Amino acid sequence: MKTFQIERPDLSLQMPLRCKIDNLTKPKGSLGRLEELALQVGLIQQSLSPTLKCPQNIIFCADHGIEAEGVSASPREVTWQQTIHFTQGNGGVNFLCRQHGFRLKVVDAGVDYDLPTNRGIIDRKIGRGTRNFLYEAAMTDEEMNRCIAYGAEIVRQCHQEGSNVLSFGEMGIANTSASSLWMSCLTGIPLEQCVGAGSGLDNEGIRHKYNVLRRAFENYSGDGSTLDIIRYFGGYEMVMAVGAMLQAAELKMILLIDGFIMTNCILAASKLYPDVLHYAIFGHCGDEAGHRLVLEALQVHPLLNLGLRLGEGTGAICAYPILDSAVRMINEMDSFTGASITKYF
Amino acid sequence: MKTFQIERPDLSLQMPLRCKIDNLTKPKGSLGRLEELALQVGLIQQSLSPTLKCPQNIIFCADHGIEAEGVSASPREVTWQQTIHFTQGNGGVNFLCRQHGFRLKVVDAGVDYDLPTNRGIIDRKIGRGTRNFLYEAAMTDEEMNRCIAYGAEIVRQCHQEGSNVLSFGEMGIANTSASSLWMSCLTGIPLEQCVGAGSGLDNEGIRHKYNVLRRAFENYSGDGSTLDIIRYFGGYEMVMAVGAMLQAAELKMILLIDGFIMTNCILAASKLYPDVLHYAIFGHCGDEAGHRLVLEALQVHPLLNLGLRLGEGTGAICAYPILDSAVRMINEMDSFTGASITKYF
Repeated sequence: MKTFQIERPDLSLQMPLRCKIDNLTKPKGSLGRLEELALQVGLIQQSLSPTLKCPQNIIFCADHGIEAEGVSASPREVTWQQTIHFTQGNGGVNFLCRQHGFRLKVVDAGVDYDLPTNRGIIDRKIGRGTRNFLYEAAMTDEEMNRCIAYGAEIVRQCHQEGSNVLSFGEMGIANTSASSLWMSCLTGIPLEQCVGAGSGLDNEGIRHKYNVLRRAFENYSGDGSTLDIIRYFGGYEMVMAVGAMLQAAELKMILLIDGFIMTNCILAASKLYPDVLHYAIFGHCGDEAGHRLVLEALQVHPLLNLGLRLGEGTGAICAYPILDSAVRMINEMDSFTGASITKYF
Repeated sequence: MKTFQIERPDLSLQMPLRCKIDNLTKPKGSLGRLEELALQVGLIQQSLSPTLKCPQNIIFCADHGIEAEGVSASPREVTWQQTIHFTQGNGGVNFLCRQHGFRLKVVDAGVDYDLPTNRGIIDRKIGRGTRNFLYEAAMTDEEMNRCIAYGAEIVRQCHQEGSNVLSFGEMGIANTSASSLWMSCLTGIPLEQCVGAGSGLDNEGIRHKYNVLRRAFENYSGDGSTLDIIRYFGGYEMVMAVGAMLQAAELKMILLIDGFIMTNCILAASKLYPDVLHYAIFGHCGDEAGHRLVLEALQVHPLLNLGLRLGEGTGAICAYPILDSAVRMINEMDSFTGASITKYF
């Protein structure tokens, strides 16, 4: 697998950043999480005046062999339909991208369809969906390595385009199934607590999904390493997102993390390179059972809790204006020194 | 007191709105609170295609007689200093107004200072701070009525300027003290649970503040009506905000509610006209002790929880992009019918 050089941000700027933030014309700490974010971004960029440039949302799309076991409320064809739909400007993620000035990159990581070539979809198709991990590994070693490399390559492209903040999203019917297995294997949380309704299963559907995933887990006979887990259970879009996140952290970009699936991708990334978490901002805690638990395992606190469960990066992009506020705060607010205001508490 | 005609929104549009929202290209309910907001705003505006026009943030500023009892960590002069500072563009509220396209109106409701007349501050000064409610009523009946009328007048001005969404903020050293008394008197929650750190008291300071407020409460001998409570404990900026909120609801505008103090203002407004709540969107649950309790008493769930405790409208304005997302969602997303996507769950 491609390796990455991910540095922990130098903390020598922490005190000057805190001083600057504490001296803005407000009671100390009164802008709460905006102050925390300003500190984090200042450290990432090693600057007292951090900036956000050319935000982009990358949606990785792929199908999953496990879908054949009836683990999703939605049919497989929705993956390719939505992949195309994202390029037409009227999907859930599109209005959010327009609202917050995000460019959108749609990546075919392995959709089971011959997608049109004239719509700007980035073709990195590894296969027409992963293999069914109930019976065999979702992908080969070689496919996994290509996923990581492709994800990294797309992020380098974003970096060359001038971006320093990226959000990551996904589209892939049945990918909450793969995510639940990643989560359980990588955190040790019992599988039962990692399985939820996905796009809309009822209780019976969740029970069936759990039983399928439990059998898959029992059938798994690999070495339990992070790489083996993500290879065995897939999917292509998720492993590509892992590569993308690692590359973004290496390039000292800000990573905006979306919902349940992307949280499990950064979990996997952090098992490979723990320092990736210094670059991550968690956008949203969704309703998917297990999302709260994996966030707790990572010891992180998302900015929003709006009951979103759409994926596509929507929860990450919704949180962007809060990040933007934090950056504006540290750049645009007067200091007590400059403003002739009695310093108050 | 000026009376208002506040109508409960006609619910006959509820079903068509729900149908439109449920038929957008996403699993039903998967955009969570964006869907709730779109429904609320659609009902307020009686439209399947609601809009947000010319948002404005109104900051009501005034001083409080009770400040003399040492109930605030911050000195009285901060009120006038910050009132002027808001007009200079570099305060906490200013960068948020710029970020989200809000106009800012700064209102002198009763600041203890001769404010400059050339900075666009709207002069509705009732007095140089309220009287000290430890010993006497904060304001007279006539002053209360003028506060209500002035607040209403400023909102009518915003309406004439084309606004259909307003947020409300405040600046007034010691106004968490008045707010705690409003809250306790209007909800029945014991005063002790309504008193908090304000802009930054330590535990001893909070104890002192509580003791002062308890004595004020014991000295109060009015009739306990909502109007008598808000008159007796003041302040000018808070009563003016009540008038503003009632007028905005009469005009079927959207009300964005900020932190602890503004939440107590809409609480008082709702005791006078319960239907005002149909027009209110709660932006933020702050850290001030009691804020969560008063929100629970109102049975409302703010959009954000970012640890803000600055006031000025900052928590309300931070929530605006979420409201904007909701409106964009219902206007910009494709329906399943239009998009040729298998309807999924």
